[in-house]
Amino acid sequence: MKKETFSLLEHYMRACMGDSAHDGEHVRRVLYLAMEIAETEPAADRDVLIAACLLHDIGREEQFQNPALCHARAGAEKAYRFLLEHGFPADFSAHVRDCVRTHRFRSDDPPRTIEAKILFDADKLDVTGAIGMARTFFYAAQVGQPLYSLLPEGAVSDGSAEEPPGVHSVLREYKVKLEHIYGRFLTARGAEMARRRQAAAVSIYENLLEEAREPYETGAAILSRHIELTERGA
Amino acid sequence: MKKETFSLLEHYMRACMGDSAHDGEHVRRVLYLAMEIAETEPAADRDVLIAACLLHDIGREEQFQNPALCHARAGAEKAYRFLLEHGFPADFSAHVRDCVRTHRFRSDDPPRTIEAKILFDADKLDVTGAIGMARTFFYAAQVGQPLYSLLPEGAVSDGSAEEPPGVHSVLREYKVKLEHIYGRFLTARGAEMARRRQAAAVSIYENLLEEAREPYETGAAILSRHIELTERGA
Repeated sequence: MKKETFSLLEHYMRACMGDSAHDGEHVRRVLYLAMEIAETEPAADRDVLIAACLLHDIGREEQFQNPALCHARAGAEKAYRFLLEHGFPADFSAHVRDCVRTHRFRSDDPPRTIEAKILFDADKLDVTGAIGMARTFFYAAQVGQPLYSLLPEGAVSDGSAEEPPGVHSVLREYKVKLEHIYGRFLTARGAEMARRRQAAAVSIYENLLEEAREPYETGAAILSRHIELTERGA
Repeated sequence: MKKETFSLLEHYMRACMGDSAHDGEHVRRVLYLAMEIAETEPAADRDVLIAACLLHDIGREEQFQNPALCHARAGAEKAYRFLLEHGFPADFSAHVRDCVRTHRFRSDDPPRTIEAKILFDADKLDVTGAIGMARTFFYAAQVGQPLYSLLPEGAVSDGSAEEPPGVHSVLREYKVKLEHIYGRFLTARGAEMARRRQAAAVSIYENLLEEAREPYETGAAILSRHIELTERGA
């Protein structure tokens, strides 16, 4: 890809995503991770892959405005129109559109080409490891969700149990989603990179749970005993 | 402390802090951690400590409205007035006020009594370990700060270098503040509890830095080479 083409796509991506530095850095990481995965996939078309990585999240704003929309589908159509309007060949534009559309997994529309699989894996790599956990904390803070929730008896839930309506804690997100992602990569290199990051995520989850639980067990019991003794007039 | 007194203070705390679940859980953890530290400090007055823990952050809203205010000082005066108005003895109310005022360290006004030191340590424990890192991510997301920043040459900064005006990344916060907190506890039990959590925070920092740096090194170089080769017409 020529430098000028790259700049054109990058500028369009930035225009679509506003000035969100976080999202911009996510796109950059996905692009770089995809280039690394592509090293072991010689058949992959680099130009399609670069365009698809840069444009994969340009439908986020549409989904934010209307949560019923899927950002992958909305972004795919936006990317396709932009590419055609700027003189990219029809087959190139359609290929990029398909990669963007399938980067969010749906069993009825999985990534089919090697470029689509690489984008899928690179995007999923950014929710693995410590960086995946960090992004999960950021997202929870932005949508007002807590680190953990309490079980009816007052203990900190490990995330396995259902949470009250409207609550979806970080520990719950880990148990229902992040924990299972490591076995779902589509390229050999992506799977290997995910495996290398897995221990970091597991350890964050376990340390967080242990540190959250400890005071609710030890200190809470000491407090209850103190209040009980005072009530008895001791 | 009687159950009724505890409920009175807890309700006032919740009223002051709005419906922020995160802040409420922080107060709860600080209270429980303080009770645990107090087990090895038999001279500590439990009732002063419980009141001080519950009320230590009630000045947050005032600081949020006017960042020139110190939430510890504002909260101390609020707590003092509330306690006097509700019939608590003057010396008890003054003692709680002093604990709240010094929970945010200032070299000219350090925590002096054992109760003030326990509150200080319990509050600082909640910025250690995985939970401290998680709270740092939450705070960064809420104030729009990034995970990391890039050095002028494009590499991911480890947080040692100054950042551009207005930027204060999570990695920078770790290097300038969180990393140094472990040696600054005032009670033996608090120091020991902090030491037990230190490895978790160090490992989050190191894994995050490594995972962020890797794509900016490997994948970015592959991309540059690809663009350069295309420009040369290869």
